[in-house]
Amino acid sequence: MRRNWVFSDLLPRIFERSGNVARHTDRRSMEELCQALLSEEGEVSGYALAATLLDRYRTADEQTRLGFFKYMNTHLDVDADRVADLAKIYADDPSPEAFRLLCEVSEPGRQELLRRLNQPVGATRDLVEMRVDLLRFVKDHPELARTDFDFVHLLKSWFNRGFLVLEQITWATPARILDKIVAYEAVHQISDLEDLRRRLAPSDRRCFAFFHPSMPEEPLIFVELALMNGIPDSIEDLLADDRPAIAPETADTAAFYSISNCQKGLAGISFGNLLIKQVVAELSMQLPGLQTFVTLSPIPRLSDWLHQQEQDPELGPVARDALDGRVSDDTVGRLAARYLLSAKRSDGLPFDPVARFHLGNGAEIHDIHSHADLSEKGKQQSLSTMVNYKYDLAATEQNHEDFVLNGKIAATKTVKAMALGSLDSTQKGKVA
Amino acid sequence: MRRNWVFSDLLPRIFERSGNVARHTDRRSMEELCQALLSEEGEVSGYALAATLLDRYRTADEQTRLGFFKYMNTHLDVDADRVADLAKIYADDPSPEAFRLLCEVSEPGRQELLRRLNQPVGATRDLVEMRVDLLRFVKDHPELARTDFDFVHLLKSWFNRGFLVLEQITWATPARILDKIVAYEAVHQISDLEDLRRRLAPSDRRCFAFFHPSMPEEPLIFVELALMNGIPDSIEDLLADDRPAIAPETADTAAFYSISNCQKGLAGISFGNLLIKQVVAELSMQLPGLQTFVTLSPIPRLSDWLHQQEQDPELGPVARDALDGRVSDDTVGRLAARYLLSAKRSDGLPFDPVARFHLGNGAEIHDIHSHADLSEKGKQQSLSTMVNYKYDLAATEQNHEDFVLNGKIAATKTVKAMALGSLDSTQKGKVA
Amino acid sequence: MRRNWVFSDLLPRIFERSGNVARHTDRRSMEELCQALLSEEGEVSGYALAATLLDRYRTADEQTRLGFFKYMNTHLDVDADRVADLAKIYADDPSPEAFRLLCEVSEPGRQELLRRLNQPVGATRDLVEMRVDLLRFVKDHPELARTDFDFVHLLKSWFNRGFLVLEQITWATPARILDKIVAYEAVHQISDLEDLRRRLAPSDRRCFAFFHPSMPEEPLIFVELALMNGIPDSIEDLLADDRPAIAPETADTAAFYSISNCQKGLAGISFGNLLIKQVVAELSMQLPGLQTFVTLSPIPRLSDWLHQQEQDPELGPVARDALDGRVSDDTVGRLAARYLLSAKRSDGLPFDPVARFHLGNGAEIHDIHSHADLSEKGKQQSLSTMVNYKYDLAATEQNHEDFVLNGKIAATKTVKAMALGSLDSTQKGKVA
Amino acid sequence: MRRNWVFSDLLPRIFERSGNVARHTDRRSMEELCQALLSEEGEVSGYALAATLLDRYRTADEQTRLGFFKYMNTHLDVDADRVADLAKIYADDPSPEAFRLLCEVSEPGRQELLRRLNQPVGATRDLVEMRVDLLRFVKDHPELARTDFDFVHLLKSWFNRGFLVLEQITWATPARILDKIVAYEAVHQISDLEDLRRRLAPSDRRCFAFFHPSMPEEPLIFVELALMNGIPDSIEDLLADDRPAIAPETADTAAFYSISNCQKGLAGISFGNLLIKQVVAELSMQLPGLQTFVTLSPIPRLSDWLHQQEQDPELGPVARDALDGRVSDDTVGRLAARYLLSAKRSDGLPFDPVARFHLGNGAEIHDIHSHADLSEKGKQQSLSTMVNYKYDLAATEQNHEDFVLNGKIAATKTVKAMALGSLDSTQKGKVA
Repeated sequence: MRRNWVFSDLLPRIFERSGNVARHTDRRSMEELCQALLSEEGEVSGYALAATLLDRYRTADEQTRLGFFKYMNTHLDVDADRVADLAKIYADDPSPEAFRLLCEVSEPGRQELLRRLNQPVGATRDLVEMRVDLLRFVKDHPELARTDFDFVHLLKSWFNRGFLVLEQITWATPARILDKIVAYEAVHQISDLEDLRRRLAPSDRRCFAFFHPSMPEEPLIFVELALMNGIPDSIEDLLADDRPAIAPETADTAAFYSISNCQKGLAGISFGNLLIKQVVAELSMQLPGLQTFVTLSPIPRLSDWLHQQEQDPELGPVARDALDGRVSDDTVGRLAARYLLSAKRSDGLPFDPVARFHLGNGAEIHDIHSHADLSEKGKQQSLSTMVNYKYDLAATEQNHEDFVLNGKIAATKTVKAMALGSLDSTQKGKVA
Repeated sequence: MRRNWVFSDLLPRIFERSGNVARHTDRRSMEELCQALLSEEGEVSGYALAATLLDRYRTADEQTRLGFFKYMNTHLDVDADRVADLAKIYADDPSPEAFRLLCEVSEPGRQELLRRLNQPVGATRDLVEMRVDLLRFVKDHPELARTDFDFVHLLKSWFNRGFLVLEQITWATPARILDKIVAYEAVHQISDLEDLRRRLAPSDRRCFAFFHPSMPEEPLIFVELALMNGIPDSIEDLLADDRPAIAPETADTAAFYSISNCQKGLAGISFGNLLIKQVVAELSMQLPGLQTFVTLSPIPRLSDWLHQQEQDPELGPVARDALDGRVSDDTVGRLAARYLLSAKRSDGLPFDPVARFHLGNGAEIHDIHSHADLSEKGKQQSLSTMVNYKYDLAATEQNHEDFVLNGKIAATKTVKAMALGSLDSTQKGKVA
Repeated sequence: MRRNWVFSDLLPRIFERSGNVARHTDRRSMEELCQALLSEEGEVSGYALAATLLDRYRTADEQTRLGFFKYMNTHLDVDADRVADLAKIYADDPSPEAFRLLCEVSEPGRQELLRRLNQPVGATRDLVEMRVDLLRFVKDHPELARTDFDFVHLLKSWFNRGFLVLEQITWATPARILDKIVAYEAVHQISDLEDLRRRLAPSDRRCFAFFHPSMPEEPLIFVELALMNGIPDSIEDLLADDRPAIAPETADTAAFYSISNCQKGLAGISFGNLLIKQVVAELSMQLPGLQTFVTLSPIPRLSDWLHQQEQDPELGPVARDALDGRVSDDTVGRLAARYLLSAKRSDGLPFDPVARFHLGNGAEIHDIHSHADLSEKGKQQSLSTMVNYKYDLAATEQNHEDFVLNGKIAATKTVKAMALGSLDSTQKGKVA
Repeated sequence: MRRNWVFSDLLPRIFERSGNVARHTDRRSMEELCQALLSEEGEVSGYALAATLLDRYRTADEQTRLGFFKYMNTHLDVDADRVADLAKIYADDPSPEAFRLLCEVSEPGRQELLRRLNQPVGATRDLVEMRVDLLRFVKDHPELARTDFDFVHLLKSWFNRGFLVLEQITWATPARILDKIVAYEAVHQISDLEDLRRRLAPSDRRCFAFFHPSMPEEPLIFVELALMNGIPDSIEDLLADDRPAIAPETADTAAFYSISNCQKGLAGISFGNLLIKQVVAELSMQLPGLQTFVTLSPIPRLSDWLHQQEQDPELGPVARDALDGRVSDDTVGRLAARYLLSAKRSDGLPFDPVARFHLGNGAEIHDIHSHADLSEKGKQQSLSTMVNYKYDLAATEQNHEDFVLNGKIAATKTVKAMALGSLDSTQKGKVA
């Protein structure tokens, strides 16, 4: 049942007609407008007040914006003493009324402010943009992390999985949306629409994105993939311009080669896990011939890790040789395998961010390929090595649990064997 | 830019294919499933766990459902002692980390549970339905009001104005949606689709509803109105079958004659205020000839109030006569005016719920009509009297503020004069 | 790729703004307007002239309408002498120019008139309506059949299969379209929307219609069917209110129980053949479990034929007994089988119109059921007997060819055996 | 009322499932398939036969295609002798039956063939493409003009104005459609999507196209225009990249600067007249501030005409000087005015094709600008001169009639005065 909903329409004009004058002539400061929005006036005129405040923010300079966040951080914080008092009262007598009072005081006023700001059409997007500023300010003003905590709290609630919609991005998608895909691609850069055409138009390419209904022109995250025969071992081959497209129904493998978060303002709110699984499921239905769902992923911190090993008695020599290009491809692959299987952060999670993401999703390290990414970035970050993470929906839950509870990393025998292989740092030199 | 979003599609099937077995064979209790959903398992398999839990709830009996709410109320409550401790720590040192810890403990675990439940397609609707049960249970188990407080908290956030979409309901609307309008009409009953046709098909009738994108088949609230010349003084005339329809562009008045909340599970979350204003604005644009936006509203508690006055030395006699039908129409009107302008609840707000709603929205009492609603319900509740509340967008804000801050009720001179008119209880008898 | 096309929008208003005055004040007669539309004026102002003429027709009385058709029939006919002359010239010298001239004179002017009338939004529908009048007039004015011939010629071209669109009609279809389904149902009457609900809402019911893009609110033809297990032998069972709906994917049979042409003005332009086949194909895809596509059809002229046989020496007695209800069900079935297999019109085609349609489409007579339609109409027309025609896409072409070229009627052994069975007219009496 | 129609869907697959084998293994020649399609077999299997024939044509070489057209031209022509006979019979007795027979023989069989070919989804487009070939063949095989005449006859009927839909093309239009706009732009070339963005994305630019529902991805004709203040006198200014966009509601002029027919196969079937008028009307509604609708058009044959005048005693010298760039801008403008007002073809219509189009639509020559198109093409064709044609809906009908019946060209006093101005061929030299 398709519907004639209009997400971005008359509402702004409505209030402009009746309230526009006020909106542009309202002389109150942003702080006063915040107070008004939180007061009785906000009950009936919240929409107009929110629109005025968002307008004001949009045209404000850095200093004013910072001031706005500081105001929220300080004046719309919780009153910790009252919280303590009411918590004690509630501990003594857990009545609904005591609970209500405790909840009210323990939620900072800025949460209600943000909810009331989120009334005009387009407000959600404005608030996400606002957080981009906030994240920047937090660096120099770490106390603003309190306010950011409330932003995250609300955004998580608003961008709850149940509210997201999946859309397949194709060459029939409105150009205005395609512009966003070009802009947000974070893994393998897209230069313009003509370049994007090569990722969307061929019959063996697919792209999917999550959207939120109140930001209909803004993809939240998208994933690009190639339908193939066999598992890809090189990004150049996969993206080659002159590669012949295959018939989708003959493909046995779907290779995810790029996943990009689009909204900086939604940092920390994760959509990738479910996006991949949903796309796996969607494609399984559309193309029953698909047997394997696998990524072709970068290993962005392999070189960093090798540098860290340079003084290691055992690995040091081979790490240095590898960084200097003096080892065989096999050795590079073995180093990468060792890195992916054993390099950890202080919290016990994998050192590699991409590995953290896919392993955390329950994927398995399927294979490692040297000479797989010959771009400058690829050479520098990972000595041109790439990795396939495999998604098998039947195994993800167990993999995830083993990963989280026991720190166990799922990997194929091939990869495990690579990690145990000898690291003959001079092999390449010898051969040469 | 219209989009091909599908709100209710493959997702359930996806997880049924991979996880269905688990879903129907998962032997864990609802409580165990809740714990799983809140644990690590919930991170990666949250969608499937949520679907399982919602399924389980849907097929559970009353006792199990009550048990589920009690579990949430007790086991997923805040730990007030820890809140008190952390509040003190934060009072001493308002660091972001202290803030984060305080926030985490001061939010009951059931809020996170509800957010995680809200992942599968259709979950939002399930949670709204769940609250219908909860509201029923609260009557006998008042302590559950704590849990209800959290439901309201989340629902307010999810049904934030910025997420709602307005839709005009017409005779071209899908029949499945029209069925809902028939079912939810609360003011002037609609018997079936053929009856609804009379409210939608004529050129001088309009209906608008708010929807939430994640409940696309469920109107949240809708309003019906008639385009007219002049302000209506009788619901029978307005709804008469044989009335000739007028050309919309010749109308000078839009008369709201019915506004119905559709979702019991959203009780306490108000949409009416903005719906009316948005419809006023929408119609102002569509039909520039419209000068007046006015309701024709019931006065549902007039008779109740008159009964309460029976022992009043001044009003008692005329109240009794009025209830017995022994006063003139003029007197009934004057009693209604007096009632609307002066009858208050203990909290100082109007005794009449419809008056509370419209006056709280910033409307003005425009006129009062006796002999306006001759239905059985109309006779019993309000001695057949009805009232026009007028919406003038330029005045609503001031009216609202006067109403809330000073208890001032906006009313025309006519209505004020009626309220001051003499209450000659025997006039009717005399005339007759 | 969904598009924002609007089929019925601004165009009328456009020309009303600039040309409206002319439209309602144009004092020329319909004949003069026709001449203007066919002249130079029609080149640039054709849209407005056509709108004026269609308006004029819509408000004209019977006599004026008849006059309009007579004008077309007489004054916009071919000039047969010129045709003969130009045909001879072309026969002598088949030059393109000679061809062009011959074509121009051999097409009656009214065809160009109709094409020029078909410019405003909604004109196609007006012309289809116009033909309804024309068909009525032809009865008393048979010479108008010439003009009707040209209507049919153009309508066939405009309603070419390539232009039709299939739409599934469901309970989510706009109510305005559903009204049309109620109105046009021709086989088993539908009283109102609530009645239609029973044919659309259950999970095991389907309805499909053809539309033409320039008449988007007017179904051209629609078919209703039931998903079942096994082949139906009674319309009462099939339509029973209290019948439990089955899960669509468990059905093995799709039973077409009603097919209705909607537009009298398109009489003689057949859509039914392809509609059934397209629906068969559509359902085969949607529900791979379906094995059998079969109708449950009336035998509308069985009684008529039996009456015609009353004087027949062989069949007369049993025909009379059957009409009087004095034969067994078996005998009624045998008579029906004999009728369907052998009763012919003078042109050699089946006497029964429904049989002509389905056999012409390449279907096979699958089975015959007595006591299958107990409605008053069913009793009178067919002694309550019904028939299943079976559509097997692999066989339709051969069946059709045998039918058309050799007059061969496809039927199962069962039906052929019934037709050869003994017609014991007194059996029922005996039993009783 | 929006609908879920699918124009390009299951149908091909349907018949491929059941009939595909036949389709690719059918060994009959194209001629035999034509005969089959016109025979009984075509009645029931027309869809599959047509699909097979269109497939066959698509993969055929030039010679086979030519053979197909020759077959149609010769074997599916009218039988002129029979036409002559039946015309005489009808002249004697104009009975409907005689009329029917005459009509049947006077329509060439290829028309029915084309109608039957037009059944599969996508067939209309195939037939339009087919005519592109035919037009090419006609050059060397002029007798094929007979077949082309029938193509035009049917295409005019199918692309009747009543069937076209207007669509605004914006940056939110599917990229696949935008590709077509890039490809079909005929006046001021567009290099790629990024270039097109400059014509669509700015707030003061508009583009509208006509589509036919059965070719939903193929624009038929489109027009581009700029919202401006004042009438443009230079295409470079109008298209300048760095020009600031104006707010649409402040514009007083809409300047059409490009109109492109998209389908060679629809040559001779005119849509431009109505497209411009419909866009004028559409924009008048959207932007009531627009006062003037005007083109900025090339004068493509000015140089050709000047060359033709070189030997003219009066104009020769100045024509030569003008072609050599030795006259003042004023003189070039005067020559252009003279050309537009007086240069005629042998049939009395304007020599300039763009002038023929706009004057034939009822527009007026409003102004002429030298130095208006500095592109190479502009310099060569028109000495960089351009012209504004003005569309005033209230005047177009009269203008058109004067133009067609009396050969009168509507022009402003300014333009008329220019045409009468002195042609001082040496002015420029003098000044220099």
